[in-house]
Amino acid sequence: MIELVGFDGDDTLWHSEGYFQHAGAEFERIVGRYVDVADAPVRTRLHAVERRNLALFGYGAKGMTLSMIEAAIELTDAKVSTPDIHRIVGLGRAILDHPVELLPGIRAAVEEVARTHRIVLITKGDLFHQERKVAQSGLADLFQRIEIVSEKNPRSYARVLAEFALDASAFAMIGNSLRSDIEPVVELGGWGIHMPYHVTWEHEMEHGVDSGHPRVLTIDSPDGIRPAVARCG
Amino acid sequence: MIELVGFDGDDTLWHSEGYFQHAGAEFERIVGRYVDVADAPVRTRLHAVERRNLALFGYGAKGMTLSMIEAAIELTDAKVSTPDIHRIVGLGRAILDHPVELLPGIRAAVEEVARTHRIVLITKGDLFHQERKVAQSGLADLFQRIEIVSEKNPRSYARVLAEFALDASAFAMIGNSLRSDIEPVVELGGWGIHMPYHVTWEHEMEHGVDSGHPRVLTIDSPDGIRPAVARCG
Repeated sequence: MIELVGFDGDDTLWHSEGYFQHAGAEFERIVGRYVDVADAPVRTRLHAVERRNLALFGYGAKGMTLSMIEAAIELTDAKVSTPDIHRIVGLGRAILDHPVELLPGIRAAVEEVARTHRIVLITKGDLFHQERKVAQSGLADLFQRIEIVSEKNPRSYARVLAEFALDASAFAMIGNSLRSDIEPVVELGGWGIHMPYHVTWEHEMEHGVDSGHPRVLTIDSPDGIRPAVARCG
Repeated sequence: MIELVGFDGDDTLWHSEGYFQHAGAEFERIVGRYVDVADAPVRTRLHAVERRNLALFGYGAKGMTLSMIEAAIELTDAKVSTPDIHRIVGLGRAILDHPVELLPGIRAAVEEVARTHRIVLITKGDLFHQERKVAQSGLADLFQRIEIVSEKNPRSYARVLAEFALDASAFAMIGNSLRSDIEPVVELGGWGIHMPYHVTWEHEMEHGVDSGHPRVLTIDSPDGIRPAVARCG
């Protein structure tokens, strides 16, 4: 029996990746004016810089913005203009400042699960930005706990389960990322409810879980959450 | 009787503010070449930009770096060169990458308190950077819990106390900032043990607590922690 249900935040409760992708496209437009795009695919080079910086910056909009600035300088051999760097800072501000827009139907779905289960929000990334989004979402009061973690790995989920004194088999996690929301939970012996989002950050595409795993369910919209939880355990 | 003892991280367990101040001084040197320093005190202008951005960036090195870049562009009317912006990004990287150096005597002092009390680490700022520092400190295993919060206010301390099901009167907090470590805890009815650090960020200097308050003790080094805890409650 499932006793605790975890929800991811970005692209599970509210839209997020689209804002990052928009910033990436604008970055490509700005930097593309300096370099031969055919020679050096700007987005690929940006991803390489982001990946290199993950160990120092972690996830989130501020780290991405610093990576964009570094990448713009490196890709253009420091020819990128100061006003263009200012524009890139503005792309980061726009991500941090966007209004929180819930996915259609998610509020009703979360409320429905909250009536029968304890629920917890487990979200990854920049602490300050995530707290702002949680506060603006209007969903905070439904959750027993809100955990903002720097990395979603078996250890971080195990810590949450220890706080609830629960075995993983009594836990189901709902999220859009196989890598971050499903794989580590299944590895611990828990259940994963995968609700794909229409865009996925390249980095999140790497995973080792098989979506045909017996403890992984796939749904296509928030309407499917309640029935899926009922099928776990 | 004190049942739980909280420790701040930056400038209480390990050196931190010095790295930020060094970055600020280097920033002043870089930007000072473009502007008449007498006209526009560079550091004051940087603080104004940082303060303006706190609500969007929160605390920490990544937010400070983005503020330095913005401030450099604004103060120089976009005349700051791209290589100089690259140098400013490097100042931020250096803060994130510095080795964790414990304050002299702090390990013994923390171990001593841990023998008689449950202890918790309550630190503020960038989640990823703080986790790195906690891990590198080698002190993590001594703490019952590690709480990284975006703001140290009565609400964040009250949440920690609720998790331990403790009244504030059984809690003592040790830290270098009257604003962040002492004032909110005293406001809740707890005890504050103030251990000043030799430099304080301007922003942390604003506080409303009187260091002569009956539940505030002041010590000048980690040696004083154990006796101070014994005097609380």
